[in-house]
Amino acid sequence: MTDFPQVTLVDGQPTSHISARDRGLAYGDGLFETIRVLSGQAVLLDAHFSRLLRGCDVLGIASAGLTESLQQDLAGLALNTVNDGVLKIIVTRGSGGRGYRPPATGTCRRVMSLQPYTPNATAAVEGISVMVCRNRLGMNPSLAGVKHLNRLEQVLASAELSAGMEEGLMLDSNDRVIEGTRSNLFLYGDGQWMTPKLDQCGVAGVMREFLLNRQEVKEVDVTLERLAEASEIFVCNSVFGIYPVIHLTAAHDTVTYAVGKRTLALQRNLNEQLGTL
Amino acid sequence: MTDFPQVTLVDGQPTSHISARDRGLAYGDGLFETIRVLSGQAVLLDAHFSRLLRGCDVLGIASAGLTESLQQDLAGLALNTVNDGVLKIIVTRGSGGRGYRPPATGTCRRVMSLQPYTPNATAAVEGISVMVCRNRLGMNPSLAGVKHLNRLEQVLASAELSAGMEEGLMLDSNDRVIEGTRSNLFLYGDGQWMTPKLDQCGVAGVMREFLLNRQEVKEVDVTLERLAEASEIFVCNSVFGIYPVIHLTAAHDTVTYAVGKRTLALQRNLNEQLGTL
Repeated sequence: MTDFPQVTLVDGQPTSHISARDRGLAYGDGLFETIRVLSGQAVLLDAHFSRLLRGCDVLGIASAGLTESLQQDLAGLALNTVNDGVLKIIVTRGSGGRGYRPPATGTCRRVMSLQPYTPNATAAVEGISVMVCRNRLGMNPSLAGVKHLNRLEQVLASAELSAGMEEGLMLDSNDRVIEGTRSNLFLYGDGQWMTPKLDQCGVAGVMREFLLNRQEVKEVDVTLERLAEASEIFVCNSVFGIYPVIHLTAAHDTVTYAVGKRTLALQRNLNEQLGTL
Repeated sequence: MTDFPQVTLVDGQPTSHISARDRGLAYGDGLFETIRVLSGQAVLLDAHFSRLLRGCDVLGIASAGLTESLQQDLAGLALNTVNDGVLKIIVTRGSGGRGYRPPATGTCRRVMSLQPYTPNATAAVEGISVMVCRNRLGMNPSLAGVKHLNRLEQVLASAELSAGMEEGLMLDSNDRVIEGTRSNLFLYGDGQWMTPKLDQCGVAGVMREFLLNRQEVKEVDVTLERLAEASEIFVCNSVFGIYPVIHLTAAHDTVTYAVGKRTLALQRNLNEQLGTL
């Protein structure tokens, strides 16, 4: 790891610092993407850029020329020397404005950083244990699906994870299961793949979207009961790919699942399409 | 304004920058306070410090020695030269941790800055116009009341404000009126002062708390209908004090209120207790 190029670029310039008046810090007024880097390539980069631009639209952050600027930043990061890494992009509304109120015009600020990543082959093959977190997701349709910088709910839920728990599932205030703290959730039951609807809260992950585009999946309301009755469950994100879930603990009860053949087939397809995640 | 000491201190050091890996930027993982500075004094400083420490407890941010450090920072800011200003304090969980998950141990990071402020005497005396925003507050009892850095809802609501609107009121998803984008709300009706309950969302403002401690006020569910029937309404925060509301616009309807004598009496008491805000 000593040779890993752990660079941070702010608006294209190598630096480890950002303005203390940035609205990303002040209000979480921005967006981010976490992208797998594999054999010198940023995986699903176009899908990440598309989601970032959609998020800019939702938040009203000016994004003219953003993709081009990000591409230029990328050229400065020497991705080609990286076998396994994670590329993180933060885009904020920059510094201006009067209190909460955004400036009428302005340009966004970019933060790009590269971090090492060690794939967890055991988790991908043998499956993981997950628990249901007490911390819940607040519902707000205006922000649902967007990967913005307001992530305290995920931070508090992650802090709950007990030893051996690789991921925590989060419910909304209506007792619907929405997603993992850093992943989306899929379940197989009644002869079909399903994933929770994200119209009230949650992050519409790039890997979730990738799977929805290639596989028949129904977006549904998911209760813990429905999850317990599923024959296969997995969580996914664009960094680790697909992790089968083999233990689901809610309060003091644990449901056990086999590593399902359908999950493994999806994982295999994914690996073939994107290279081994 | 040219002589205004517009200093920013990060962990006590004069600098305009903060680590690009700070969790405040990455996740909004922190808290803030906005404090009125008047005639060289930070107004209600102890109440702001208390709320900050309560917020640290809720988020699990280590706060040992924080008050002492903030007092030392303050000594470096030359507040005594400031007639009218706003002191902003941000406290974040610092840089560490693994993704969302906070580090098991760690120290918080402090950002303190001083900005000029021009009191709006007209608003305080003649009252303001407010509108009801379309953007709503998500409900999450774990975070309700806390002045944390996840403020996208307020940013988006503030962006809605049309010309002449000094403040926007925000509802929760159950159509209850909760607060202004940067203020708390009080109303007088049925012979008593009332303010919205903040058990599901909203920020428990220091000025709100100050008033609750000195005045009989009932915490209630507030609908737009109840607000329209009130005889007096005001919004408050610890920077501008009390602004009477004289116009409340919801969709295309506007309700008009007089600047009430009870509101002016509260404002007068406040000015006597804290110095002219």
